[in-house]
Amino acid sequence: MEREKHGVPEDRLTAFEAYRARMNRRILEADHLGIKRFFHLDETAYHDGALDRKTKELLGLVASMVLRCNDCIDYHLINCVRLGFSDEELFDAMNVALIVGGSIVIPHLRHAVETLDLLRARENPTE
Amino acid sequence: MEREKHGVPEDRLTAFEAYRARMNRRILEADHLGIKRFFHLDETAYHDGALDRKTKELLGLVASMVLRCNDCIDYHLINCVRLGFSDEELFDAMNVALIVGGSIVIPHLRHAVETLDLLRARENPTE
Amino acid sequence: MEREKHGVPEDRLTAFEAYRARMNRRILEADHLGIKRFFHLDETAYHDGALDRKTKELLGLVASMVLRCNDCIDYHLINCVRLGFSDEELFDAMNVALIVGGSIVIPHLRHAVETLDLLRARENPTE
Amino acid sequence: MEREKHGVPEDRLTAFEAYRARMNRRILEADHLGIKRFFHLDETAYHDGALDRKTKELLGLVASMVLRCNDCIDYHLINCVRLGFSDEELFDAMNVALIVGGSIVIPHLRHAVETLDLLRARENPTE
Amino acid sequence: MEREKHGVPEDRLTAFEAYRARMNRRILEADHLGIKRFFHLDETAYHDGALDRKTKELLGLVASMVLRCNDCIDYHLINCVRLGFSDEELFDAMNVALIVGGSIVIPHLRHAVETLDLLRARENPTE
Amino acid sequence: MEREKHGVPEDRLTAFEAYRARMNRRILEADHLGIKRFFHLDETAYHDGALDRKTKELLGLVASMVLRCNDCIDYHLINCVRLGFSDEELFDAMNVALIVGGSIVIPHLRHAVETLDLLRARENPTE
Repeated sequence: MEREKHGVPEDRLTAFEAYRARMNRRILEADHLGIKRFFHLDETAYHDGALDRKTKELLGLVASMVLRCNDCIDYHLINCVRLGFSDEELFDAMNVALIVGGSIVIPHLRHAVETLDLLRARENPTE
Repeated sequence: MEREKHGVPEDRLTAFEAYRARMNRRILEADHLGIKRFFHLDETAYHDGALDRKTKELLGLVASMVLRCNDCIDYHLINCVRLGFSDEELFDAMNVALIVGGSIVIPHLRHAVETLDLLRARENPTE
Repeated sequence: MEREKHGVPEDRLTAFEAYRARMNRRILEADHLGIKRFFHLDETAYHDGALDRKTKELLGLVASMVLRCNDCIDYHLINCVRLGFSDEELFDAMNVALIVGGSIVIPHLRHAVETLDLLRARENPTE
Repeated sequence: MEREKHGVPEDRLTAFEAYRARMNRRILEADHLGIKRFFHLDETAYHDGALDRKTKELLGLVASMVLRCNDCIDYHLINCVRLGFSDEELFDAMNVALIVGGSIVIPHLRHAVETLDLLRARENPTE
Repeated sequence: MEREKHGVPEDRLTAFEAYRARMNRRILEADHLGIKRFFHLDETAYHDGALDRKTKELLGLVASMVLRCNDCIDYHLINCVRLGFSDEELFDAMNVALIVGGSIVIPHLRHAVETLDLLRARENPTE
Repeated sequence: MEREKHGVPEDRLTAFEAYRARMNRRILEADHLGIKRFFHLDETAYHDGALDRKTKELLGLVASMVLRCNDCIDYHLINCVRLGFSDEELFDAMNVALIVGGSIVIPHLRHAVETLDLLRARENPTE
């Protein structure tokens, strides 16, 4: 039940991804039509459309920061990094979130930057 | 001070219930009249009235989900299960919370479903 | 563009319903697939399911109150009254919203009770 | 039903106070014990205690600003002015609310400052 | 003091812009150093940087929608239209806000689309 | 990466303070001008001004409680205790937060009181 109890030293991102995948599967298997459709709609909202996926993931990141949800921040940050945003761009987006949402966002900014560092370390495992 | 450090393997629900009981006792012993009255009012809000307790616990669950408070979700979910709601009914209520509150509710839906599974496992310890 | 400028004396509920219908039509005509599907999902979330529509409209009302959205309160209150909830039941639900959400909910409680009075006056136009 | 329709030119503060008094009376007459007790508890929370009323009204003002509720802001600002806070002190408190809550608070800061000007104009009607 | 009382028929956007300009001036004249600096920081957050202004205004729009602030939505929408976003792009961004924030965002989506129509009508006054 | 993994038994406050200091340093070193200025503005907001620092830290505490941010609560509570507030005064302020914000604040009240006990234990290590 615990996210980080698996005995092997693994970073919190790996634990989050495993927990997220497992629980999403559990939820979808409950087979509530409305919930399943919402999950599908949530996924497609970030697909290329009038705006490209990359821009929309950044929108998702900033929305998650001002609403102060660490798991949502991690999810969108993973995608933002994978889609090629630089640290400078991500800090510039996080600055918008900070200004809009105020100092109450700062603990989530700390979390986001820690996640960003974990993601960069993954990209460069030899460091 | 830590919730899960007690050395014996116990699930997070038992730890939550113990922590909640201990800290509520601590708070009430501080003897602030306003806080004590609020705690009393909070408890009586879910008693049978024009609406029955069962309906009001479901209202409490959905309110806790859209406001995104895991401890409040756990508290009302424990009561909802004890009062006899089926999984189907609880998923249907959680779907309302998801639609009203959006994808930012999803991490709390994952938490709620994990709690629900823990509660069902308690009911059927041989499983 | 203004909601109450139509020259005929009409109560704010009628104006709200007309504005809501007109703008929802405008939004759906913009033909964004994701938005259209969300609107559909939002509507079906309150249909009879494991929980009946009446219970789910009450969940929608309480969720709207703790999230402090007057238009959402009006929408669900209209449905709650049409589905047969008594004033006593509605006040009991609103009390749960008040306890969960605190005094910041009070302005919305005032709005909700005013709406309720408008709805009862509609039901009894001779009063 | 409209707050400002009374035919005589009156400022929005007078309309707010009349509306607030009328609807609170209506709510209390509905005679829901929980709601009545909450209203009483809400009132007593600002009475002199370990902290004096003046400090607690300032806490109420800042809490209302970060939660972005104009009616609550007006209510606490009326009390803060009556209890003798200077404009400098109120701007200093509102700055804390702005920093904590971010730019999303700015529309409510505009509202609060407009209210403050209305309250000062009341104090000095010859101006 | 009232936004729309000026006797001449003007749309709500013009009234909002005048009110916003007047109250911002009033606030800055109060000369609180922290507030003045925050206003400056808020403005510069949307200047070209690692991300361009256009992208950051879109971030501001989505943040304003999920935090459900109509004045903030209007402000960023005015800028988004001026910077050249198409309706299709804006609906695609608003869809992200709707999915993240849920149906509680819908009243603000209605407001945003009404604002968008007002802005397009300004661009094409002969229509 | 984990806050409490350091092998030595240390309370969660010490871990929070170390994590907060480390991540703030990391964020400031990223050298985004807007973020750096916001951090500076956030710090100066609580300096003596028209209101004294002590009053403003209490405003920060109550704002943090109604916005339900445990890290922010801890930060302001540490300062409130250092600046000499008594338990009675702090409970009186927390009561205002509880009334304004409702029962959804209770989990954060439990957290705050636990933090307060940790801070008093620090002051009196022999107990």
